[in-house]
Parts: sequence; C-alpha cells; structure tokens
Amino acid sequence: MSGPDAPQAAPAAPDGTRFVLVGTSHAGNVGAAARAMKVMGFADLVLVRPRFADVLSREETVAMASGAADVLVRARVVDTLAEALDGITWACATAMTPRDFGPATFAPREHFATLAVSPHRVAFVFGPERTGLSNEDVYRCHACLSIPAHPDYGSLNLAQAVQLIAYDWRQALGAYDVLPRTATAALADAAAIDGALQHWQQVLQDIDFLDPAAPKKLMPRLHQLLNRAQLTMEEVHILRGIARAVDKARR
Amino acid sequence: MSGPDAPQAAPAAPDGTRFVLVGTSHAGNVGAAARAMKVMGFADLVLVRPRFADVLSREETVAMASGAADVLVRARVVDTLAEALDGITWACATAMTPRDFGPATFAPREHFATLAVSPHRVAFVFGPERTGLSNEDVYRCHACLSIPAHPDYGSLNLAQAVQLIAYDWRQALGAYDVLPRTATAALADAAAIDGALQHWQQVLQDIDFLDPAAPKKLMPRLHQLLNRAQLTMEEVHILRGIARAVDKARR
Repeated sequence: MSGPDAPQAAPAAPDGTRFVLVGTSHAGNVGAAARAMKVMGFADLVLVRPRFADVLSREETVAMASGAADVLVRARVVDTLAEALDGITWACATAMTPRDFGPATFAPREHFATLAVSPHRVAFVFGPERTGLSNEDVYRCHACLSIPAHPDYGSLNLAQAVQLIAYDWRQALGAYDVLPRTATAALADAAAIDGALQHWQQVLQDIDFLDPAAPKKLMPRLHQLLNRAQLTMEEVHILRGIARAVDKARR
Repeated sequence: MSGPDAPQAAPAAPDGTRFVLVGTSHAGNVGAAARAMKVMGFADLVLVRPRFADVLSREETVAMASGAADVLVRARVVDTLAEALDGITWACATAMTPRDFGPATFAPREHFATLAVSPHRVAFVFGPERTGLSNEDVYRCHACLSIPAHPDYGSLNLAQAVQLIAYDWRQALGAYDVLPRTATAALADAAAIDGALQHWQQVLQDIDFLDPAAPKKLMPRLHQLLNRAQLTMEEVHILRGIARAVDKARR
C-alpha cells in the first residue's frame, strides 16, 4: 500500500471496486451479497468456483438479490482467484483464522482510512461459508480484514460480512448523504417560550396549582423542560391553546 | 438526548441495548437478525406482532440464527411497540420514508458518537419488511436513523440493516479488538538489507546483468523495492540463498 508520501489520488470510482466470492455454497448468499453491494453503490461481482455453476440464474439467488438483478447479470464466474483479480492492485482477504506469513490483519475501518485515498484498484475477497479462504488464496492478497466481532461468537453470515465491508468502504470513499426526512420546522425563539410560560403561570395560579406567595422552583423547572424539548412555534400554539381551554373550563 | 452539559456517564452495558422487530414477515429474517446481534455482543430481542406467532421456534428461524439460538430463547413476543419499549429511554426508529413532525433523522455513525456517551437505555426499532414502520410507531421514538445507501437503490434487507446498526453501535460503544492473525515476524534491519543487496550486486555483476562501469540506477531501485516490501529476516535468508544458487549454477 502506498506510504505517506504517495500522491493523494482521487478515490477510486465506485465501479472500480470488486467483490469476489470464492467457493460459495448457498445460492441465497450470492443473491444477498449482490443486494448488499448495490445498496452501497458497488456493481462488480466475480464468483470463483461456486458450488452451483448456474448460481447466477437460480431462483433463490434472484429472490435474495431483490432489485439487484443487474449486478447478477454483470457478474462473472471464473475458475481461479488469480483470474478474479485481473486488473486489481490491492486485494483484501476477509479471514477469521490465522495464517503463517500471511498479509497483516486490520479492522476494516482502520485500513480503509488510508486505502480510500490511495490510487489502488481494490478487491474484497470472501471465502466459502464453512471453511473460509484457503491459505493459497490468502497469499494472493495484500491485506487481511477482520471484522471486529464478539470474541466468543464471531461467526458472521457471508452476506452480512459483504454488507459490512461494502458499508464501511462506502463510508470511507465518501458516504451518501442522509436526507433530512422531516421538513425543518420553525423553532420557537426564547420570547415565544417566555410568552407561553407567562400564559401558563397565570393559569396555574388561577387553578390554585401555583401559589404566587410560595412559587418554589416550579416555573424555572418548566422553563428548563421546554428549553430541552426544543419547541416549534406550532407546539407553542398548542400549549397556549390548552392554557386557554383550561381557563375557559374553570370559569 | 442529553446536551453537551449532561454528565458523561459510562457507556450503557451491551446487554442494555434492545433490538425490536415490528411485524416481521419472514422467519429467516428473525433468525438472521438474532445472529447479527450476537456477533456484535447484543442479546435482547423483542418481536412486536410477528406474522407467525411461533416464529421463534420455526425451522427457518433456527437455521438462520446458526449459533445464536440463545438469543431466540431469551427473546419476547409482545403486542405493541409500547410494551417492547418498557425500560427504554431512547428509541431509535429505522425509517426510510419521511414523516411529518417525526423525530429528527441522523446517519447512525453520527448519532451514535453522542448516544454512546449518554446514560440512555437504547432500543433500535425495525419495521415490517415491505412497509417499514407505521407513523404511530415512529412517533414513539426519539430519533430516526437512516443508513446512508445509494439514492436510487437504498433497499436494505431487514437482517442486513440490523447487522449494520449492531456493528456501528458496537463500534461506538468501543469496538472489539482485532487480534493480529499472523505472528509478528522479525523484520530485517537496514544492515541486513544492505548485506543482501551487496550479495546480489556481486552476483549481478558476475552474470553480466550489472555493468560496474555504468551501473545506472539499478541498485538504488532494488534498494527501494526491498524497503517498500518490508522484508523479514527469513525472507532475507531466502534472497541470499537464491543469490548463492545463481553463483553456484554459473560456475
């Protein structure tokens, strides 16, 4: 990987990132992996020796891919990891078990911080569900990624691992925006809160809840409550409407 | 949520975090969600009105839960979200569609940075696969979380969403360690690299690849190559062994 003096190239285009599944057994996992990639904007899927040669068109694969059928259509099936890594300059193995003299192991987020600003063409390589990657395949890679999971139960489903790596990599490349889901409401200013509190103070005195001779800390407490609640103007109107209704009811 | 002046309590215990699935249709998703929680160290699962009342013991659920059967055994089935949120002080809705005057929407990572150091007892609430959470359920929550996904295809599978939230929340609470998977090899120091280069320089001259009268930049290039490769002592021995074998073969 490039050192600190390497030129800071623009992040690789999303389509430059490849996901490689080696020896996958379950068709559903291939479909779920395609969907997991697509929601994070990745589309280059390569399968190495899947259990079923026709896995890309199996019913279970297509069902689990949901709207990501286009990723399956573009996907390739090859015989060796060497073929799958054609054009790739930095292959990350996901590996749970130790390998003598294998590449160094990193947590994804830690590794991605530097990888995202490198000029590398990146692949993520996932092994068979039960056995994980063979030593031979790990030795083709430039780094090992280990998803930090519970030490006594770190067994992620394959498609879940693909989802986490795709998510963290997308975050590192520059996350998609989260659109504010609610229209920004007009917040009530301090004067509006003061007005509502004075209105309620009068009503609370009228209904004998607040004794003006011994007010204790009631009003400052309500003031703090309303400040924390960050009222909108609409909500101030609601509270004053209730105060008016109370006043009307007591007469 | 607590403001900047709130006391910085210790992070909530992992078991304090609850995952609530509302109206889940697919048994496999319940099992996969249990597994996704467990790999990140969470164990409190509550189901609100699942499609199948016996979903916790269905074959598909147990199969997808893999080693997380204990999470299913501890899980509860209730009728309303209100019951599911018993004991919770901060409920995060996962919601893809806008709601008028609903809680503010955040990206998980952004929200978790402050939530993780608050004293809140936290729940994450996930809606039915096809429809998402009802407005009524969103209005019970304190924040909306939106997983940053591709704007044209943001449709995460339910269990994948549970996995991403569980992962980001675990990272915010304090990630599990990633154990170095390979024994730390003894790195070759600069003198060892120098020795190997001098050895090879002699061999390269002997086989007429390097002209000592016009060496150009060959040796500095090889030096840089070896420096970047961060050789171990064992690898230095291999390179010197090759040089000896070349020398022997040419005689």
